[in-house]
Amino acid sequence: MPAATGLGRGGRPGEATPSLLYAPDLGVLGSSVRLSSEEAHYVARVIRARVGDTADATDGRGALARLRFLSVGPEARAEVISVERAERRRRAWLWCGAPERGRADWLVEKLAELGVERFQPLACEGAPWPAGEARIERWNRLAIAALRQSRRSFLMEVRSPVSVEAALEAIERPASCWVGDPGGRPAGADVHAAGLQILAIGPFGGFRARERGRLEAAEFAPICLADGRLRTETAALSMAAWWAAR
Amino acid sequence: MPAATGLGRGGRPGEATPSLLYAPDLGVLGSSVRLSSEEAHYVARVIRARVGDTADATDGRGALARLRFLSVGPEARAEVISVERAERRRRAWLWCGAPERGRADWLVEKLAELGVERFQPLACEGAPWPAGEARIERWNRLAIAALRQSRRSFLMEVRSPVSVEAALEAIERPASCWVGDPGGRPAGADVHAAGLQILAIGPFGGFRARERGRLEAAEFAPICLADGRLRTETAALSMAAWWAAR
Repeated sequence: MPAATGLGRGGRPGEATPSLLYAPDLGVLGSSVRLSSEEAHYVARVIRARVGDTADATDGRGALARLRFLSVGPEARAEVISVERAERRRRAWLWCGAPERGRADWLVEKLAELGVERFQPLACEGAPWPAGEARIERWNRLAIAALRQSRRSFLMEVRSPVSVEAALEAIERPASCWVGDPGGRPAGADVHAAGLQILAIGPFGGFRARERGRLEAAEFAPICLADGRLRTETAALSMAAWWAAR
Repeated sequence: MPAATGLGRGGRPGEATPSLLYAPDLGVLGSSVRLSSEEAHYVARVIRARVGDTADATDGRGALARLRFLSVGPEARAEVISVERAERRRRAWLWCGAPERGRADWLVEKLAELGVERFQPLACEGAPWPAGEARIERWNRLAIAALRQSRRSFLMEVRSPVSVEAALEAIERPASCWVGDPGGRPAGADVHAAGLQILAIGPFGGFRARERGRLEAAEFAPICLADGRLRTETAALSMAAWWAAR
């Protein structure tokens, strides 16, 4: 579902609009910014920009800028020739227990494409996430790639796994809270969706009774996402898609 | 989002309910059925069933049976001790242009989990699917795995790629038809959803004007699935999730 209109020069065959550049240190109007080596590669090799060409960039925190390249190559610098700042209109945090091994990477990519604000892995009883900072770094890279591709100006935040209790303590109120549950009411029912939405999905094997009790006590409304049993990562993506389509 | 209750003996740690067995040649009550080598392996190694144990099976065409094992091992036979047949309550065909290479496999798995009736790849202008029957066979295996895992009694049908025109000719009317479009009305709007639903997503790069004109002439309603640009496979999955949650 590519955008119908685009800015800049599309280098990839069949791509309607080039991706946004990600420049977390984007400055004010008139300042110059040095792009990361990954962005410099994209500029030189994919969109094949030349000095004087322009492209769009975001800092991942709401700024959308037009850049003009001052240099391209292994190092790339650009001048900020216009910049506007957007407010985040829609907010969702996706809490997710561990799926089967290897199934989280594409979930992170898809959640970022759909515009989720924060991905919070839940460390549930009997369903630990594999240890390792490398995974969080990889997920951050996937979130950045999705930001570029979907031309969003807010980068999805990737958190380290925490328990259900710790996640509950970190909720910013007011928030509307939902938990995926085959016995819940149909997700399609019309639902008031203003403000922060918290979407919780249990791990492979489901939430334990104690965890479910905590969520109920925190007024997480059970909603049913499909008429069959869904894998953890499918349920998480369905819930985010349900939210995004509202 | 595993089911809250289960039948049989769950062998995988953390799994609330074992998967369904897939037995396309499931007979009538009292008959005996020989399981495929893949199902025999699952019975022996995953659920670790013994002669006399029972398990649930489907033929992928609406039958849900209880089997009792007559033999287990490299060859497995079972007696059909009960069988019921369900009507398909909800019907969706997902038409999808080619995503970037390598991104279709998990899409097929997720569409089958969500209960899509038919996956119809669209061979769009400028966006061919890679050739090869092997791919269709692999997709069929993924659809069967998803059927088992989601305990559905209807197997998703996987078709070979056809043009938009050929796909339009194969529509069973009446049908409600939708096309993913960033300029469409929000998908979240309340929508009458009885009968066959046809959900169309363009390829990487989007539908060409001629193809879009054909879809418009066939009264495909444009709907918007998110406030950002989605990859083809993300849009397809979002649309199926939107349908499944209704």
